[in-house]
Amino acid sequence: MATQRIIDFLNTRRPNGPCLVVDLDVVRENYIGFEKALPDSRIFYAVKANPAPEILRLLASLGSSFDTASVTEIEMALDAGAPAERISYGNTIKKERDIARAFELGIRLFAVDCVEEVEKIARAAPGARVFCRVLTDGAGAEWPLSRKFGCVPAMAVDVLRRAKSLGLNAYGVSFHVGSQQTDLSAWDRALSDAKGVFAALAEEGIMLKMVNMGGGFPTRYLRDVPTAQAYGRAIFDALRKHFGNRIPETIVEPGRGMVGNAGVIKTEVVLISKKADNDNVRWVYLDIGKFGGLAETMDEAIRYQIVTPHDGDRTEPCILAGPTCDSADVMYEKTPYPLPVSLTIGDEVLIEGTGAYTTTYASVAFNGFEPLRSYVI
Amino acid sequence: MATQRIIDFLNTRRPNGPCLVVDLDVVRENYIGFEKALPDSRIFYAVKANPAPEILRLLASLGSSFDTASVTEIEMALDAGAPAERISYGNTIKKERDIARAFELGIRLFAVDCVEEVEKIARAAPGARVFCRVLTDGAGAEWPLSRKFGCVPAMAVDVLRRAKSLGLNAYGVSFHVGSQQTDLSAWDRALSDAKGVFAALAEEGIMLKMVNMGGGFPTRYLRDVPTAQAYGRAIFDALRKHFGNRIPETIVEPGRGMVGNAGVIKTEVVLISKKADNDNVRWVYLDIGKFGGLAETMDEAIRYQIVTPHDGDRTEPCILAGPTCDSADVMYEKTPYPLPVSLTIGDEVLIEGTGAYTTTYASVAFNGFEPLRSYVI
Repeated sequence: MATQRIIDFLNTRRPNGPCLVVDLDVVRENYIGFEKALPDSRIFYAVKANPAPEILRLLASLGSSFDTASVTEIEMALDAGAPAERISYGNTIKKERDIARAFELGIRLFAVDCVEEVEKIARAAPGARVFCRVLTDGAGAEWPLSRKFGCVPAMAVDVLRRAKSLGLNAYGVSFHVGSQQTDLSAWDRALSDAKGVFAALAEEGIMLKMVNMGGGFPTRYLRDVPTAQAYGRAIFDALRKHFGNRIPETIVEPGRGMVGNAGVIKTEVVLISKKADNDNVRWVYLDIGKFGGLAETMDEAIRYQIVTPHDGDRTEPCILAGPTCDSADVMYEKTPYPLPVSLTIGDEVLIEGTGAYTTTYASVAFNGFEPLRSYVI
Repeated sequence: MATQRIIDFLNTRRPNGPCLVVDLDVVRENYIGFEKALPDSRIFYAVKANPAPEILRLLASLGSSFDTASVTEIEMALDAGAPAERISYGNTIKKERDIARAFELGIRLFAVDCVEEVEKIARAAPGARVFCRVLTDGAGAEWPLSRKFGCVPAMAVDVLRRAKSLGLNAYGVSFHVGSQQTDLSAWDRALSDAKGVFAALAEEGIMLKMVNMGGGFPTRYLRDVPTAQAYGRAIFDALRKHFGNRIPETIVEPGRGMVGNAGVIKTEVVLISKKADNDNVRWVYLDIGKFGGLAETMDEAIRYQIVTPHDGDRTEPCILAGPTCDSADVMYEKTPYPLPVSLTIGDEVLIEGTGAYTTTYASVAFNGFEPLRSYVI
């Protein structure tokens, strides 16, 4: 939703060109919501979702930890005031020199999903804690995860055994149920796998301590999603079921769930046209598209809520496209988007729920268009 | 191909991190090749393919004209030394204030594909020349065009008639057969449509003068493609067939064909791993991916040639992925890519034919990774 603060900002400042406006009050509410829903888990904000310094500073001050994907993100979290012990290097794909640099910066918690990565960490970050990412199937997620990250549970046992033998601290297991995961049973299945890895290693005397449950907490796009509280309950129930009264330390890594609903993109209708006189679908071209920050409309995966000055008028289906000369720069075509028939060239429209995975996805200069500007208020 | 100059540059400079190196000698050869193949056409380089100032300066000095997508690209072409009369504003989706700015800068040639855009140009760029883009089906292209640009030929007649009635110079018709178009008959079909628009308007006394045949000239990726000369012949034959001895002024807009084969990306193997012990496909992770400049691997549309230090060794199929924490950041998975079994973490590999549509597609900071660096030599 566009909060009153965001609406006031846009009305007062009248920024030119497309921009994202993020309301820090909503981020704060989300953080507190996660704390309440998951009181026994440490919250590692997924910096990649939106690394705006203001957001990182707020979350650092609230006590959040940070999940980072690169040395640059580690440095940003440190700059925001997070101590190194509250930062994990959560990318399973790291250059050995980047691991060494992270270690220099004080980072001691690393993600792995194969023996090769464990060997790099043993050389470049001796003694560090590692957790192994386990493959989950991602069913039920709107933005499904491929097999890119993680390994099968049986292999995770080998990976963590190898970590231990190389002097690392075999610390735990992670999984990611898929972004925008609305099927609560996904956590149950993944925790069952995690417990299996714990049990197999315990037989060899290697006692894991942590389960990193990743992200996947949905933000509100077009459909209602279970609330953070419901998620928390389901996750706690699954932990209890699989780990009994020996529930491990747990971590969650919300990104979209922390900032998605805190941001709104303001954009302008550049053109409305048809391709033939007898077409029954109009093309609506905005000044933002797939290469300007809306990359997650790829394959029409995420369907944002769009607010126009004419809401309430009769609607008709529209194909929604971006402003570049790239024919792939079309957001919604297979499933056209209903927009008011009274929508006019020059109208400003709001795209809601765009606080996550927008600004940093924007291309640096495609077609000469500048990257999405961002205001954090 | 990596030219000797590119190889020497990489060996001498040893740039850190992924980068694109473009050899201007190849761009020059390509320009001269287009001039020879299409001696009667004006060449408008599609700036969006690669707007590096060195490339624009070279082409401006060779006499090229420029097809631009935004005011920023117009300014870049002017800065490179191109006079305004050699620049077209070829994006059919323009804000009226951007049209006005282009007009101020001296631009007098604009693309349209609907009456709404004609009306903007009549207000903001009175008296300018306009050409109307006609929809083509794009069959045969590797990177197919959707219906995003253009209108059906019958509507183009209305659009250009309206332009004339609003005091604009109804100048011509454009089409685009689709990027990497390898089917030479595509030009024939499009020119037939163009001729139809010319004829319909001539009956009303509106004499069009120009056909803009767009781009689509392929660069060499994995497969042999007809040479520029063969393209030139086929296009000339089609012009003769449809326009007889009244061949109009023609424009071509090569982008990929001008710079694609002039550039090579140097990247590093960050990780090679499997997801399970019994997997028969390895995952190879590079330090560049879909969000770092290889956006055109979307849907595995473009398959680049990859050169490794171990070429000649036995190969096995690999899934090729980028370095970000985004599961969509996978280049080749449905059709795995054969790479040497001896490929090793830390190896530098070259991705050839990457001079076009790479640098500017790169995301501004996704996962904290900086945009693709570029060296033009």
